[in-house]
Amino acid sequence: MSDPACPLPLEDYPTITMAHGGGGKLTQMLIDGLFMAAFDNPALRRMHDGALLDVDGAQMAFSTDSFVIDPIFFPGGDIGSLAVHGTVNDLAMCGARPVALSAGFILEEGLAMEDLWRIVTSMGNAAAEAGVPVVTGDTKVVDRGKCDKLYINTTGLGRILPGARIRPTRARPGDVVLISGPIADHGIAVMSVREGLEFETEIVSDSAALNEMARRLVETGRDKLRVMRDPTRGGVASALNEIAQQAQVGIRLDEDSIPVRDQVRGACEILGLDPLYVANEGKCIAIGAKETAGRLLQAMRSHRHGREAAIIGEVVREHPGRVHMTSSIGGERVVDMLAGDQLPRIC
Amino acid sequence: MSDPACPLPLEDYPTITMAHGGGGKLTQMLIDGLFMAAFDNPALRRMHDGALLDVDGAQMAFSTDSFVIDPIFFPGGDIGSLAVHGTVNDLAMCGARPVALSAGFILEEGLAMEDLWRIVTSMGNAAAEAGVPVVTGDTKVVDRGKCDKLYINTTGLGRILPGARIRPTRARPGDVVLISGPIADHGIAVMSVREGLEFETEIVSDSAALNEMARRLVETGRDKLRVMRDPTRGGVASALNEIAQQAQVGIRLDEDSIPVRDQVRGACEILGLDPLYVANEGKCIAIGAKETAGRLLQAMRSHRHGREAAIIGEVVREHPGRVHMTSSIGGERVVDMLAGDQLPRIC
Repeated sequence: MSDPACPLPLEDYPTITMAHGGGGKLTQMLIDGLFMAAFDNPALRRMHDGALLDVDGAQMAFSTDSFVIDPIFFPGGDIGSLAVHGTVNDLAMCGARPVALSAGFILEEGLAMEDLWRIVTSMGNAAAEAGVPVVTGDTKVVDRGKCDKLYINTTGLGRILPGARIRPTRARPGDVVLISGPIADHGIAVMSVREGLEFETEIVSDSAALNEMARRLVETGRDKLRVMRDPTRGGVASALNEIAQQAQVGIRLDEDSIPVRDQVRGACEILGLDPLYVANEGKCIAIGAKETAGRLLQAMRSHRHGREAAIIGEVVREHPGRVHMTSSIGGERVVDMLAGDQLPRIC
Repeated sequence: MSDPACPLPLEDYPTITMAHGGGGKLTQMLIDGLFMAAFDNPALRRMHDGALLDVDGAQMAFSTDSFVIDPIFFPGGDIGSLAVHGTVNDLAMCGARPVALSAGFILEEGLAMEDLWRIVTSMGNAAAEAGVPVVTGDTKVVDRGKCDKLYINTTGLGRILPGARIRPTRARPGDVVLISGPIADHGIAVMSVREGLEFETEIVSDSAALNEMARRLVETGRDKLRVMRDPTRGGVASALNEIAQQAQVGIRLDEDSIPVRDQVRGACEILGLDPLYVANEGKCIAIGAKETAGRLLQAMRSHRHGREAAIIGEVVREHPGRVHMTSSIGGERVVDMLAGDQLPRIC
């Protein structure tokens, strides 16, 4: 059997570009056109943050993420704690209680042993804090110059929480959209270090485990909680566009209600970035039935990582598959998915 | 809380060396000294090819592996099929039926899209052949020169087979040691390409999924099948040393009964390698009670990947923690673990 030809238009993109990893349109093209074509199966087709599996009657979630962030140490975290938070959050956003993590290390020859120890300790602490053990691992070493210090893959296994029925496709007109706090902290903290920006107070990544907050949301909303999503690479804009497309609904955001710290907003202006597209690593988007809005907001605010939670928009019948935003100073604009790569190697 | 100091002797190894990834003594030092110290928990302490988990009463196996092989295409496979076989086999060696795989890609900017498609297709085919779906994935892109074409992590989830009780610690004196076929094919196939060696007939990697053979072994041996292990990085010698140490038994090999293809033996001589230390990617070591030896051998030979299976040794009370080898042309020698890195980036 000869394999079918590559389904992507090779004349446009004969090689991988940085933008293919940015979480925007090109990443989606790669996933839809290439990976889905090769691996096609029902679990993958659901296109969640993780896969939902039925293992002999047990409802499980399964999710993987590789971390290639540069620099490996940043204000508020490091590649180790981030690798734990990222996968714990992907499981939590499926409505699952994280049960176990794996850790796969690719190390560059010459990496300082003390840096590795610091990162591994940080991973251990983050895992303990989230209450999820790292149960299995793997280590590879590649020649100097074939990696950038280290890359970490974490893959997580979770058990779907009782009563949880979280699906991106369940968003429906009338639902409210919540965010658990100010956006863009992670991306701007990392970019500030990279660009050597100095501020009066340091901007710190929001990197944190969201499994306990997600558990409270599930317990509060039950079947009325439709979608959870952590807006990482590509930010809030990309996460909401994905949901709008998958559920074939419109989403309307209220710009004035979206929390952004002043300093982060200032840094975004300096860097020419829109906070809606900047990565978060400890924020949760929740979409639920209107009647549960107050209780979901309360559940978020009851958790220390959700004190500044806000209702930021609603799901509408109009413009299915698209996200619009209104603001007090005028009009409505389309919040599109980015075509390219806004911030490379942000996670 | 300040973190404890790095538990490894920094004066000896202040940085990561290629040998830390070789599967020998330094890899073990890294795992024991650093990862175990940071992640300590009962599942990790068992030190299997994968972790054994009890998820609400369901016995599961969970295993991760990153693949950094160079070159990415080699006789008998590529990094994609290898990434499927490697993790499927780790689950199979735990006595589990593989249920689902995740795939995490780290792509180098500039990777040819057609190469990626060829690899992803090969993964899809290998997964379909092994009967295990790839249910979730992740893609990152790093700058040119920060990766070598691509690295793939696969992590697998499996369900322990009924009757399976596979533990490295269960090997006991009197047990027999079997191998499912000729050793060292994978490592030599890859090294031949790297070194530009030419042979009359090409040496082909043995890369293959062993889950069906493992299922037959479990069904045949039940409780009398004590250990399974796929001797990958570090070869048969490293795998048996690990088992001898974990079970605190001695293992005695009979050199004349270990199958090695003539051509592979020849290539080993040219390359200065001992086939016992060369990686395999489609071979299974099984250790079982003496009375089942014949039936286990038969079960291996009943599978197309086990036609040349052989009994190669026994577990003994003497020299606990060590592997010895006897040969017809004289004496007994110690088969130690390698201190360094025999073959870098072989998987």
